[in-house]
Amino acid sequence: MIAVVAASAVSMVCALFGTPLYIRFLVRRGYGQFIRDDGPTTHHTKRGTPTMGGAVIIGSAVAAYAAAHLVTMSPPTVSGLLVLFLMSGLGLVGFLDDYIKISRQRSLGLRAGAKFAGQALVSVAFAVLALQFENEAFLTPASTRISFIRDTPIDLAFAGAAVGLVLFVLWAFFMIAAESNGVNLTDGLDGLATGATVATTGAYVLIGLWQSNNSCELRPGPQCYEVRDPRDLAVVAACVMGACFGFLWWNGSPAKIFMGDTGSLALGGAIAGLAITSRTELLLVLLGGLFVIITLSVVIQVGSFKLTGRRVFRMAPLQHHFELAGWGEVTIVIRFWLIAGVFVGVGLGIFYAEWVVGI
Amino acid sequence: MIAVVAASAVSMVCALFGTPLYIRFLVRRGYGQFIRDDGPTTHHTKRGTPTMGGAVIIGSAVAAYAAAHLVTMSPPTVSGLLVLFLMSGLGLVGFLDDYIKISRQRSLGLRAGAKFAGQALVSVAFAVLALQFENEAFLTPASTRISFIRDTPIDLAFAGAAVGLVLFVLWAFFMIAAESNGVNLTDGLDGLATGATVATTGAYVLIGLWQSNNSCELRPGPQCYEVRDPRDLAVVAACVMGACFGFLWWNGSPAKIFMGDTGSLALGGAIAGLAITSRTELLLVLLGGLFVIITLSVVIQVGSFKLTGRRVFRMAPLQHHFELAGWGEVTIVIRFWLIAGVFVGVGLGIFYAEWVVGI
Repeated sequence: MIAVVAASAVSMVCALFGTPLYIRFLVRRGYGQFIRDDGPTTHHTKRGTPTMGGAVIIGSAVAAYAAAHLVTMSPPTVSGLLVLFLMSGLGLVGFLDDYIKISRQRSLGLRAGAKFAGQALVSVAFAVLALQFENEAFLTPASTRISFIRDTPIDLAFAGAAVGLVLFVLWAFFMIAAESNGVNLTDGLDGLATGATVATTGAYVLIGLWQSNNSCELRPGPQCYEVRDPRDLAVVAACVMGACFGFLWWNGSPAKIFMGDTGSLALGGAIAGLAITSRTELLLVLLGGLFVIITLSVVIQVGSFKLTGRRVFRMAPLQHHFELAGWGEVTIVIRFWLIAGVFVGVGLGIFYAEWVVGI
Repeated sequence: MIAVVAASAVSMVCALFGTPLYIRFLVRRGYGQFIRDDGPTTHHTKRGTPTMGGAVIIGSAVAAYAAAHLVTMSPPTVSGLLVLFLMSGLGLVGFLDDYIKISRQRSLGLRAGAKFAGQALVSVAFAVLALQFENEAFLTPASTRISFIRDTPIDLAFAGAAVGLVLFVLWAFFMIAAESNGVNLTDGLDGLATGATVATTGAYVLIGLWQSNNSCELRPGPQCYEVRDPRDLAVVAACVMGACFGFLWWNGSPAKIFMGDTGSLALGGAIAGLAITSRTELLLVLLGGLFVIITLSVVIQVGSFKLTGRRVFRMAPLQHHFELAGWGEVTIVIRFWLIAGVFVGVGLGIFYAEWVVGI
């Protein structure tokens, strides 16, 4: 618990005080955001706001993780390190993308192929490593079983360990890519993605603490949780939550800085990593519900246009639809935060109800 | 747990769909807010926005409480009913105040004396009743002992029951008046008080559930909680939280409606009532930390001006200081929400830490 408190406090303070220093550094170097030409035209006023703010989030989270373990004099865990690796690795891919956009003064960054290769490399490394490092209770950071509130009987290794490994890597990559993409699409209005990430990672702090208080080691029984390092996953979630919290001070409307792909890929990776290692993969559909509906809005828009030639929304992702419908940016952000909050509430409610009554 | 979920869902849905109907009703009748002449001049543009939105919050919360008990077929508890009585009673006082402001077309409402008498009457009734209704475990909704995370040894009834009753009534009235006043002062920027109340009441949902899972009846021990109806207090907190959540959809910037004194007195009462009945009175300094610092800013401003003739802030309450310092309204609201969130996090952290390690 002390570790969780230390983690959130340190990451928040780092992000809160680190962001303005970083902004000053970027502005002095003349690095500003290039706004996509296909977004709403009102966004062209945002040209020049510094981006790559995700670097502060990642740095704060990693520093806080180290600080929390120093304070409590406890060694880091494999699960925690793997999630941080996934976050930082994807953040690096996003950073290269952002950096090329800025230095070449164009809205497109890394070539799609190179970006995909980078994401795939980091994700595959994460997935393969997450099936190693068995502890004394025979638990690995991740498992080949698909999880909802805990691991379900559906095992990707139904036809042997090799098949299981391949299918799990594909499944993990799908989750990571979907979540990164979801956060990326949600980014675009001041503070929107940051605030939604606070809600999702906040939920993972509670889930990690709960799982660790009711682990099968501590309290065996039908409702116990088999997760390798639940308490340290709560610490990691607290690191990310605190960093986003501090960053939101500056990223809230009117944003002084954007997180960029650096931030959205890293945060999507962190969230997917938390879901995989805490064995709550399918629950993420609810805990990250806002990201899901925003992603779906794009899928529906593109699908409908290709199939029928007609658009469902005025513009996708969903938040731009409401902008064109005349809602103010702040109105959309606050209302979408509320939607994210409801999703998290429902997700946590189901998680807790399963423990109370079973499902 | 089902009751908590039902309570938040019903109250949120009621407030979400009830508020626009209520706005339409008020607008048709020509009821708009009169902005204080002593606020920042930019606020004069807010003239005409309907107020008394607190009525929707109270109505939604009460309806949700009834619905939650119907769904679970469980009788209401004395503690729950008392908190709802306190909220509704103070809401009524606030409503009369708001109504007179509007119908007389002036910014001042009820005479100060009448308003104070109304608040005192409701608070005293609450406090006296809260010391009755002993259950089979000899617990009353409130106790004469001052509480922090649980009742402390400091007992207001140190010199007998009669002295205890009088001192407790004064203490409860002080808490209720301070909290109502705090929410009232915090109100004034779009969504600010509503969002901060969501955070505080959200904390009380967690505290109520936790206390009921670790009650002295269920798990006796040095760390158990002696609270009369903790689970039902979680339900009440969920009712208020859900109602504020739904209301925030419309009350967020740019606000379509204000909560008015109807809302701020009622919410302050609900929060103080939850603190008193859940035996976390002093913890409320943290859980409602934003209300405390905003109240303090007024105390400091007035005190400093009277004593030294100089003002500490450009304008009090604190949020107007930052407005005059050039921060945008939305920036202040989001940052103050973050501050409220940090306070709630610290408060919950201390509450949980006490359970883990004792203090």
